[in-house]
Amino acid sequence: MSSVPWKWFIEHTHPTQAHMHGVEKYVFSGKTPFQTVEIIDTDFFGRCLVLDGKIQSTEFDEYIYHETLIHPAMITHPRPESVLVVGGGEGAVLREILKHPSVKKVVMVDIDKEVVELCREYFPHWSNGGFEDPRVEVLYMDARRYLEENHATWDVIFFDLTEPLDDSPSYLLFTKEFYAVVRERLHEGGCIALQGGNLNPRLIECHGAVYNTLKLSFDNVASYGAYIPSYDTMWGFITASRDLKPRDIPPEIVDKKLGEERNILDLRYYDGLTHQHMFALPKDIRKQRSAEKRIIEDDKPLFVY
Amino acid sequence: MSSVPWKWFIEHTHPTQAHMHGVEKYVFSGKTPFQTVEIIDTDFFGRCLVLDGKIQSTEFDEYIYHETLIHPAMITHPRPESVLVVGGGEGAVLREILKHPSVKKVVMVDIDKEVVELCREYFPHWSNGGFEDPRVEVLYMDARRYLEENHATWDVIFFDLTEPLDDSPSYLLFTKEFYAVVRERLHEGGCIALQGGNLNPRLIECHGAVYNTLKLSFDNVASYGAYIPSYDTMWGFITASRDLKPRDIPPEIVDKKLGEERNILDLRYYDGLTHQHMFALPKDIRKQRSAEKRIIEDDKPLFVY
Amino acid sequence: MSSVPWKWFIEHTHPTQAHMHGVEKYVFSGKTPFQTVEIIDTDFFGRCLVLDGKIQSTEFDEYIYHETLIHPAMITHPRPESVLVVGGGEGAVLREILKHPSVKKVVMVDIDKEVVELCREYFPHWSNGGFEDPRVEVLYMDARRYLEENHATWDVIFFDLTEPLDDSPSYLLFTKEFYAVVRERLHEGGCIALQGGNLNPRLIECHGAVYNTLKLSFDNVASYGAYIPSYDTMWGFITASRDLKPRDIPPEIVDKKLGEERNILDLRYYDGLTHQHMFALPKDIRKQRSAEKRIIEDDKPLFVY
Amino acid sequence: MSSVPWKWFIEHTHPTQAHMHGVEKYVFSGKTPFQTVEIIDTDFFGRCLVLDGKIQSTEFDEYIYHETLIHPAMITHPRPESVLVVGGGEGAVLREILKHPSVKKVVMVDIDKEVVELCREYFPHWSNGGFEDPRVEVLYMDARRYLEENHATWDVIFFDLTEPLDDSPSYLLFTKEFYAVVRERLHEGGCIALQGGNLNPRLIECHGAVYNTLKLSFDNVASYGAYIPSYDTMWGFITASRDLKPRDIPPEIVDKKLGEERNILDLRYYDGLTHQHMFALPKDIRKQRSAEKRIIEDDKPLFVY
Repeated sequence: MSSVPWKWFIEHTHPTQAHMHGVEKYVFSGKTPFQTVEIIDTDFFGRCLVLDGKIQSTEFDEYIYHETLIHPAMITHPRPESVLVVGGGEGAVLREILKHPSVKKVVMVDIDKEVVELCREYFPHWSNGGFEDPRVEVLYMDARRYLEENHATWDVIFFDLTEPLDDSPSYLLFTKEFYAVVRERLHEGGCIALQGGNLNPRLIECHGAVYNTLKLSFDNVASYGAYIPSYDTMWGFITASRDLKPRDIPPEIVDKKLGEERNILDLRYYDGLTHQHMFALPKDIRKQRSAEKRIIEDDKPLFVY
Repeated sequence: MSSVPWKWFIEHTHPTQAHMHGVEKYVFSGKTPFQTVEIIDTDFFGRCLVLDGKIQSTEFDEYIYHETLIHPAMITHPRPESVLVVGGGEGAVLREILKHPSVKKVVMVDIDKEVVELCREYFPHWSNGGFEDPRVEVLYMDARRYLEENHATWDVIFFDLTEPLDDSPSYLLFTKEFYAVVRERLHEGGCIALQGGNLNPRLIECHGAVYNTLKLSFDNVASYGAYIPSYDTMWGFITASRDLKPRDIPPEIVDKKLGEERNILDLRYYDGLTHQHMFALPKDIRKQRSAEKRIIEDDKPLFVY
Repeated sequence: MSSVPWKWFIEHTHPTQAHMHGVEKYVFSGKTPFQTVEIIDTDFFGRCLVLDGKIQSTEFDEYIYHETLIHPAMITHPRPESVLVVGGGEGAVLREILKHPSVKKVVMVDIDKEVVELCREYFPHWSNGGFEDPRVEVLYMDARRYLEENHATWDVIFFDLTEPLDDSPSYLLFTKEFYAVVRERLHEGGCIALQGGNLNPRLIECHGAVYNTLKLSFDNVASYGAYIPSYDTMWGFITASRDLKPRDIPPEIVDKKLGEERNILDLRYYDGLTHQHMFALPKDIRKQRSAEKRIIEDDKPLFVY
Repeated sequence: MSSVPWKWFIEHTHPTQAHMHGVEKYVFSGKTPFQTVEIIDTDFFGRCLVLDGKIQSTEFDEYIYHETLIHPAMITHPRPESVLVVGGGEGAVLREILKHPSVKKVVMVDIDKEVVELCREYFPHWSNGGFEDPRVEVLYMDARRYLEENHATWDVIFFDLTEPLDDSPSYLLFTKEFYAVVRERLHEGGCIALQGGNLNPRLIECHGAVYNTLKLSFDNVASYGAYIPSYDTMWGFITASRDLKPRDIPPEIVDKKLGEERNILDLRYYDGLTHQHMFALPKDIRKQRSAEKRIIEDDKPLFVY
């Protein structure tokens, strides 16, 4: 039985559903003031970052998640210069944002300095120099407070946050009250993008509720999705803005912007056809999302399993 | 711990990757001359059909698989009258095919009579009367022999087969030699569709090799995909024909054909936007598929884990 | 991976400890008014009876449990004629009791008729005709009520009960008040024996508390143990009486009683040397048991995980 | 689900049997020239040493294993002065041997220096200063070669070896040819003791074969056993000598030797009653051991799962 692993990481997504990952090595285990952190080496997904028992990113497929979060909004915006990132400790969002040549300034606000430092140590190529880039500033603080107190405005704001769990204060970054503040921090023609929960039709309530909540502050909200192997699922993302409509951009335009306009040639997941794929969500997902009516408020939070 | 299940079904997709399903009840376990059969009730996916240890279909999401297999080819064909089904023991492909009003005759060739009977007993709504429909004929025999010996030709041929495993003769239904015969059994303007393996970029070799092998017999081959929750993955499908091009059909035309032309109003997964989603595969999947160069031949089979 | 099972039974003994049993077939799953019942066929232990998620008895090793529960008390008693069994639905205690030729009458009181009937159907050789023996009477009722209302007295009383769980009323058969009643139902020279919980030094609190509670009603209480492979542990048993001392019976006497006196020649686990082994518990178990000071009372129950 | 672990160590003892341990922290993972090493912290058993995927010793219950291996032989020998240890890298055998005041010299021969150093770092209290004791000498070399080439003789020789696995050369320390050499290295009145495999009646072949093989070189061979919680089983040990008979030593003598004679007062598992328990093996174990007829030879090795 020597070929069967004896070290396993088991991630539950439901009391009766779990995914088992054979582990080559548990590289790091620790606890920051905000979350537990595991860094594990697996045969299948390579090195993985695990926060509070949930896989966040893996060597093998982090490009899918990060390209999906960043490029649709960046391509939709005609000329993004100032970008705010809320969360994003792995640094891979910086890597993708900085590929757009118009970018002049990126501020990243992450509450957990230790996770950022661990990622820089254990996954240096994920940020790929982004933390050292002179255009980048990193602040370690609560993002809600930052946005409430700091009145600067931005072309694009990204939210790369863990899901709202019932023992974490991050839920205050998913509420109606918070998004109303966010809206005020966007330039006229700006837009936001965020990871937005599972699109498995049975586990879609978080995605649907975030979508509904964003609709209260933004006229144009669009769901999109990407299948992420290490999540075992089609994962949801959302863009929101006053008037930008990423769904309407045809594949050829996406490819032209990536290519001759911005000279971004090294993407592995995202291009025009992928853009079309992402925004054309299947009928059941659209229907289930519409069936979800909840609004998330500061005093009516929503938590996932 | 009373809420945690003690009965589990554990499906390995790789020596170091497995999915655990908490089981409410193991309803049936048996062995036909061709495969092992389990019918299990799970909390998450409802009743499931498991062949040789792999989940085939579940109450919760079989509509995704079966609508995806059937409707793109049926919609692409202008007026499908005669349909051959290879495999398809659950009966759900019959259910979907018979929704198209032009269909006059369906022959289903499945080697495993016991599985068909078990499905009719345990999942009667999956076929939804299809087996009793006067247009339907079911033959229990080896499909390779059927197609080699029977020279009838068809508008559409579907292959709803389990993947080629190294201890099963089904691999002879995935080879160059077999597809050459299949080509001869299609009408001039006919097309085929088949389930075509995992699209997880690391497990895509089966999909890529089947795609390549079909290219030898058909000028127009198109991959498409659907995320199927009970498979934990984006699953691949393929259509092939001499001159039909399903990828080029715009969403509005799909919706018009389904609606006013054919009056198919009860689909849960498939519609015009889903059609667009399915055929616009992400860049990494396209690239990995292209990197796979194998051709499957009778004496050079390919087996999956 | 065809040799690795995909059906598993996973028994937790602690939130962080579990035993996985590969299952050949889930034979029966149901729910009586009192407990859930599973009958499963495993490669390693053969057919198993599982109540409320815990393995009770298996083909492979039920002889250890049942010989250990029955024979020390029966051998200690000079001439057991009347025997009461509380619980014992599998029927295997009847099989062992009836091997003693002096036995004239056995009454078995089990609350769960369905379990008894399932055992007679699925494990007929466990009772081995015991239920049909004219000396045996079976009553389906609450044993506490039976003993409180029925003033008959007995030579030996056995308690073959599942452990006290927090969602089951069986805990009322482990209390000070109950044992005081039991004492009144024993003949002057009678004794009782019962299964008495895990002897794993870290999980011994149930055994210790039952031992302490019996001490309040009986002058002679003796712990003993047997390693039961399907329980993964050394399991505890207890005898109690006014003046019988099973620990003092030397191996030769046990063998003589079993042999020339009673002609019981077919035991697989129990004999003189085994008797010595059972009652000579290791030092750590004796110490941990002594460290446990709890008494179980009707309104101070003790529950196990 | 926050209280359920996501890190697990799963130890298979058979293709269909496994034990799951929830892990708090994987402390060390590495590979020496001879074996893989894991040091893991578990909630249930505390810190554990795992070699080649099998738990060797744990904080919680290593005292059982080590007291059981060492003291029966040491107590049986009237005055052990010179002791050889083969294996024993954890150092806990040194700790127990050195409790006997007559000991003047201990040589330990272990092939794997790295494991010894890891144990001294991660489990310093297991050796409890034994490695620094002036009576102790440690040699890192192949024990077979040591015993063949070095003609010194000893009062007691202990073998604390991992089981013979099919990808390890340690099987040459379990053969007829090796035990014939060992016999020559014992003083006239000396004895040996060794860990001797699983006593689960279904997994007893290794124990039985080692027992048979020792019988060829020693007139007095005695099996004994201890239930070791972290092994999930009753584990086997064996003593062998020309004329010492540990089974015949009554409990009172064991207690007297430990107490007034040798002043060993801190044992947690072993005493007179435990000695009696250990050597009085149950009938089924005796029978299964007798049914095993194999002899282990250099060119007829035996491997365990």
